[in-house]
Amino acid sequence: MQKRDVDVLRLPTPPQWIDVAMADFSAVLIDHCHCERKAAASAMALVTWYPSHEVLVRRLAKLAQEELRHFREVHRFIVQRGLTLTRDSGDPYVQQLLKHVRTPEAQRRTDRLLVSSLIEARSSERLQLIADALGGDELGAFYKALATAERGHYTLFVELAALYDEQAVVDARLAELATAEAEIVQRLPVEPRIH
Amino acid sequence: MQKRDVDVLRLPTPPQWIDVAMADFSAVLIDHCHCERKAAASAMALVTWYPSHEVLVRRLAKLAQEELRHFREVHRFIVQRGLTLTRDSGDPYVQQLLKHVRTPEAQRRTDRLLVSSLIEARSSERLQLIADALGGDELGAFYKALATAERGHYTLFVELAALYDEQAVVDARLAELATAEAEIVQRLPVEPRIH
Repeated sequence: MQKRDVDVLRLPTPPQWIDVAMADFSAVLIDHCHCERKAAASAMALVTWYPSHEVLVRRLAKLAQEELRHFREVHRFIVQRGLTLTRDSGDPYVQQLLKHVRTPEAQRRTDRLLVSSLIEARSSERLQLIADALGGDELGAFYKALATAERGHYTLFVELAALYDEQAVVDARLAELATAEAEIVQRLPVEPRIH
Repeated sequence: MQKRDVDVLRLPTPPQWIDVAMADFSAVLIDHCHCERKAAASAMALVTWYPSHEVLVRRLAKLAQEELRHFREVHRFIVQRGLTLTRDSGDPYVQQLLKHVRTPEAQRRTDRLLVSSLIEARSSERLQLIADALGGDELGAFYKALATAERGHYTLFVELAALYDEQAVVDARLAELATAEAEIVQRLPVEPRIH
């Protein structure tokens, strides 16, 4: 199966985002910590919904474990900086994207997987921007490694979608959802958070 | 802080349980796989509810990662045996235990932690029974290691409860909840599942 890139994103993150993010990096760290937690939870939700899909279960449980490792690492940076992890304030970007998941079961699975793939692609793009802005210190190296890891996750979700649905259907739906994702990014205010 | 044992359980598992479990070990494996998944989810739910509790977040995120590793290992045994992970059919034992969690926030946290500790204690007891019944093969060794790990988890939850509440309050409440747990075990039918 052909590897794809974060090129799926129809709209690059607005250039002012990285300035806003770096100006309140504490807020970004806390939001990012919750993103990793929710990425793990959402991978395991797919496992719960599709327990008999052996490959999906195997690969997403591994992914969830990896996201929890990231969660713990980001939490460590938060504590090191004397910050406190606050309550999750919710994620309008993900909520709006999830509205595009269609209800009939055959479409639902593909949509859920592709929405996850787009979230991973956007996260990867932004983690790379953070890595570039941070430079070569410990935190910068950490974000660089994360950006690379998330890029792999994007591909994983698209591959899983194509394992249980026709490739042409997956490609067409991915194009539609990528357009919807770009519109959501364009509409949302630029804030010190991952998405 | 003093280490405690699974002695907290007021009632040993009914002796016929292990026969029922071994007679349909495929069902036990599938139930157990979901138990590990739900243990991870419930540890991360505590993290979501109490994000500012640094020690709780640190230790329960680590625990959740470990439970996901167990999930993946049990899933591997399921696949190896040509079985399919089916939908989770729910867990009346846990549901009934959770009814004992009191609503006011100060009591709620302690209760949530102690309910988790009792679930871990009961799981550990039963995983040990399975390990003993299976003997020395690969699966038996796996269950032996798991039983030991879960025993440590019981202690972890009691320690966390005592970190955020008075030890005497925790001890008294643990005694009450242990009595409730024994009544639930006594009431429930003996089935090929972990609890």
